[in-house]
Amino acid sequence: MANFTLLKELVQPAKTKIVMLVLDGVGGLPNADDLTELEAAHTPNLDRLAREGCLGQHYPVEVGITPGSGPGHLGLFGYDPVKYEIGRGVLEAVGIGLPLSADDVFARGNFCTLDAAGNISDRRAGRIPTETCVKLVNKIKAANIQVADDVEVTIEPVLDYRFVLGMRGKGLSSNLGETDPQRTGVPPMQVEAGDAASQRTADLFNAWVKAATEVIKDDAPANGLTLRGFSGDPAFPKFKDVYGLKAGAIAVYPMYRGLASLVGMNMVEHHAHSIAEEFEAAAHVWNDYDFLFIHVKYTDSRGEDGKFDAKKAVIEEADAALPKLLALKPDVLIVTGDHCTPSQLKAHSWHPVPMLLWAPATVRRDRSSAFGERECARGGLGTFRAGDIMQLALAHAGRLAKFGA
Amino acid sequence: MANFTLLKELVQPAKTKIVMLVLDGVGGLPNADDLTELEAAHTPNLDRLAREGCLGQHYPVEVGITPGSGPGHLGLFGYDPVKYEIGRGVLEAVGIGLPLSADDVFARGNFCTLDAAGNISDRRAGRIPTETCVKLVNKIKAANIQVADDVEVTIEPVLDYRFVLGMRGKGLSSNLGETDPQRTGVPPMQVEAGDAASQRTADLFNAWVKAATEVIKDDAPANGLTLRGFSGDPAFPKFKDVYGLKAGAIAVYPMYRGLASLVGMNMVEHHAHSIAEEFEAAAHVWNDYDFLFIHVKYTDSRGEDGKFDAKKAVIEEADAALPKLLALKPDVLIVTGDHCTPSQLKAHSWHPVPMLLWAPATVRRDRSSAFGERECARGGLGTFRAGDIMQLALAHAGRLAKFGA
Repeated sequence: MANFTLLKELVQPAKTKIVMLVLDGVGGLPNADDLTELEAAHTPNLDRLAREGCLGQHYPVEVGITPGSGPGHLGLFGYDPVKYEIGRGVLEAVGIGLPLSADDVFARGNFCTLDAAGNISDRRAGRIPTETCVKLVNKIKAANIQVADDVEVTIEPVLDYRFVLGMRGKGLSSNLGETDPQRTGVPPMQVEAGDAASQRTADLFNAWVKAATEVIKDDAPANGLTLRGFSGDPAFPKFKDVYGLKAGAIAVYPMYRGLASLVGMNMVEHHAHSIAEEFEAAAHVWNDYDFLFIHVKYTDSRGEDGKFDAKKAVIEEADAALPKLLALKPDVLIVTGDHCTPSQLKAHSWHPVPMLLWAPATVRRDRSSAFGERECARGGLGTFRAGDIMQLALAHAGRLAKFGA
Repeated sequence: MANFTLLKELVQPAKTKIVMLVLDGVGGLPNADDLTELEAAHTPNLDRLAREGCLGQHYPVEVGITPGSGPGHLGLFGYDPVKYEIGRGVLEAVGIGLPLSADDVFARGNFCTLDAAGNISDRRAGRIPTETCVKLVNKIKAANIQVADDVEVTIEPVLDYRFVLGMRGKGLSSNLGETDPQRTGVPPMQVEAGDAASQRTADLFNAWVKAATEVIKDDAPANGLTLRGFSGDPAFPKFKDVYGLKAGAIAVYPMYRGLASLVGMNMVEHHAHSIAEEFEAAAHVWNDYDFLFIHVKYTDSRGEDGKFDAKKAVIEEADAALPKLLALKPDVLIVTGDHCTPSQLKAHSWHPVPMLLWAPATVRRDRSSAFGERECARGGLGTFRAGDIMQLALAHAGRLAKFGA
């Protein structure tokens, strides 16, 4: 992770602009032609930046560890993903774009099937489709369950049998035990308070569960529910405080906007769908920020689909759009991923993530010829932890004072 | 940093000799010909050592951090520069070559201008030139101010309006507050004791300040003074104890001799001015030491001047003199810098520092062809923290036992 203590001493203001372009899941494995998606892609712009810049490869969490989206991005942002934990409830909430405050407690909910005796017969309610989940959540919303005058309840569907439940109010606590017994043949558990200060919150959630279960009692196979992962705002240090950067996030998917908001980035309003439109959104707010995080989702999606050529095409789309971003003249541009998603594996992987650092005024060119995994493995930055990236970015942007005389 | 705990178990005696040749600020950035100073320099000897040895690049403090001379050298010596802090007073003292003992307290002094009411009107005394500073210090010396029978006072000029003040005596403490109010229109503050045990030392410094101010009262614009950065011997672990090495330092500038003395190196007496003469000084004491630190200053100086060709020439001077050093047949020779000083930036920088490890009997050659930044980035040692260097040196010198059965 970045050394926040040391940075507090060294961060200095500057007028420079940093862009972190995350091609989600960009790293891959070579195909029969011995080329990865990134290496096979026609990327004249990225290759030029590689020749003018410096390459390397990083581990977002630790060597051999396959990061989920949360840890992958926290690593890029310089926050040790092992130390900076995001509770499941909060992750689910930010993942669907719910705002988060210090007064919030979120839980991840599952619809389940209860038998006549009130015991769980299916912990996932027969894996009902998302549309059913939406209908059930709307039915519960319509019932307008009140638990206390000073507490606001939020419920939103996620996917399949999953929903997110939040309560907002002063003095609420997330130190609560989950209600999923993790087996069938027994009833859901009560929400237990982890300490005396959490008793009221436990009582409120129990009251809500009782009322909501009443609402859906005739909706088998989804006639019950369980709650897990109670969690509140993790109160991470913010970009402005640790890096001195006014930071904005441009992402199409709520999950990535949510992750960025946890580290204090502002959400840039935009209507972008394509990568080019995301870069246009960056142009609109260029004067408002020192740092822009731009997230490209579909490299990962196509990797997860197992579609080598489709992933390659997303990379080519990013490359083709890149001149729009370069026209803004960032002082430092980092292009990398939050993890690898080799299309051969159809999943995130633990392989080191290729990275390109471009900073025309200050970078040490490393004689790389193109942006690709094997070039990055021999690049001038070596192999490092993602936690170093922000320090590299700040240094190349002239935003760190000398340490010691 | 080096793992002192582990080394304590593993260090074993040997007759081998290690040389650490520090070309201060040696790393750079490529010019229009895509060559750094080191790459552009004609260095047949270093290039041969590169072919016979192994290259790598290191970060003296951390990724992205630009080291000052103190942290840069502590990093090379294996001491975590963030953990092993050197107070400003002590750094100033060792920087001008004053000896340091456990009974010393040093402060950095500034001459200042006092108005008729005794308030500071200029915190830097109109930035008087060094010659004036020397005259004032000599006048104060001549006044022979005594503060106590068992306390010896030292005052020496530094540069411009700056001087260093030391007291030596049993039981003195450096837990003292500075007297510079950091603004004008108010008088200098009294030296405040940070705890009861420091009260006597505070009283002694206050007595001295009163007497010294009396001596210079008619010397406006330098008719007052302030003291900052009170500090004592940081009592770092010593080379002999952590590495089992009898170590000597050959440096032309006092600052580097001082830094070396803080880690327990002996100062080699010499009259060297050129690099060749420094190597001759090494020859004179070759049988007295296991480890020699040889410091070459002017690579950094020319880099700070922004003079690419002049920095290149210093590197060529070092290369040309190298046969004198090689004739001594060191078992391990490390050639590196304490940080980079690219002439394009005219300043220290955060870029990784090129390093050459030569150890004819034990090194794994890495097929490097020349000593240069980009060769080092692809070298067999990879990219690492400077804290690893001493362990590499000891290992290649046969001075570390096997760990575990």
